[in-house]
Amino acid sequence: MADMKRIDVVFEGIGRTTGKMRNDIHVDWPAQGESFDLATDEGPFHGGDGTAPPPLALFTAALTGCLMTQIRAFAKRLKIEIGEVEVRARLHWYCEAAPGEPYVSHPVGFDLDVDLDSPASLDDRMRLLDAAKKGCFLEQTLSQGLTVGHRLRDGEDWIDA
Amino acid sequence: MADMKRIDVVFEGIGRTTGKMRNDIHVDWPAQGESFDLATDEGPFHGGDGTAPPPLALFTAALTGCLMTQIRAFAKRLKIEIGEVEVRARLHWYCEAAPGEPYVSHPVGFDLDVDLDSPASLDDRMRLLDAAKKGCFLEQTLSQGLTVGHRLRDGEDWIDA
Repeated sequence: MADMKRIDVVFEGIGRTTGKMRNDIHVDWPAQGESFDLATDEGPFHGGDGTAPPPLALFTAALTGCLMTQIRAFAKRLKIEIGEVEVRARLHWYCEAAPGEPYVSHPVGFDLDVDLDSPASLDDRMRLLDAAKKGCFLEQTLSQGLTVGHRLRDGEDWIDA
Repeated sequence: MADMKRIDVVFEGIGRTTGKMRNDIHVDWPAQGESFDLATDEGPFHGGDGTAPPPLALFTAALTGCLMTQIRAFAKRLKIEIGEVEVRARLHWYCEAAPGEPYVSHPVGFDLDVDLDSPASLDDRMRLLDAAKKGCFLEQTLSQGLTVGHRLRDGEDWIDA
């Protein structure tokens, strides 16, 4: 395993409430020296002003875009010729609540249909998609599962929560 | 359980390649009649033109914004008074590759530090954060884990991939 090459990828975000339901989130990718100003909001139905997409819309774009990016990056590396790529995504959750209780949400299933404009054989296209799935940071995180860590500020202290 | 109220939440996306590494992703939330035009790109280091944030920046904003949205929604429901909310996120992955092979990515850990401007007791703030974690669609998906389904188009057929 001495020849394995490892790269750490760290993103940092600072989110602040800036409207009734709007959040402005400054995202840094320190290793690349890149930063991005993003925002989420909710529509009037959920008490927001609709000034930005809801978090799940950003997530849908992130998941779809992550796989598409890996498909193109790995096509070059595996020397599999592709032209345009179209991916259709369907992400399904449900939430449920007992009367008077906060709701609890659950994933049902996420499905991505991939259409590659490519003269490559089905075998090669399957090999490419397989590599892209394994390279996709978000799919790998979802399939391996991960419990997010939390701390809550209490005065000058940070309490594990 | 007859009194449980269930709501299904479905987001759909169509992603298309529109630049060297850019993807334009049209996201629909059919139940709300809302749609959002989003995009991802990569910087020059990864062969892109830097015209949009990378997928992991959208994801960082989605995860941070999702928890923040639930904190505010549940604060009302639980009658816990809060003012401004600040969340600092740190998302860590790594990828590794054997020589000449495509890389495989792995999550290391995601941490969210939550600072609530609130006169509520620590117990109430902890209770609010706990409800927000259980309501947050993305945290719940991550903690339960989920294998994304894929199909690859082959002529007029769709092959499970």
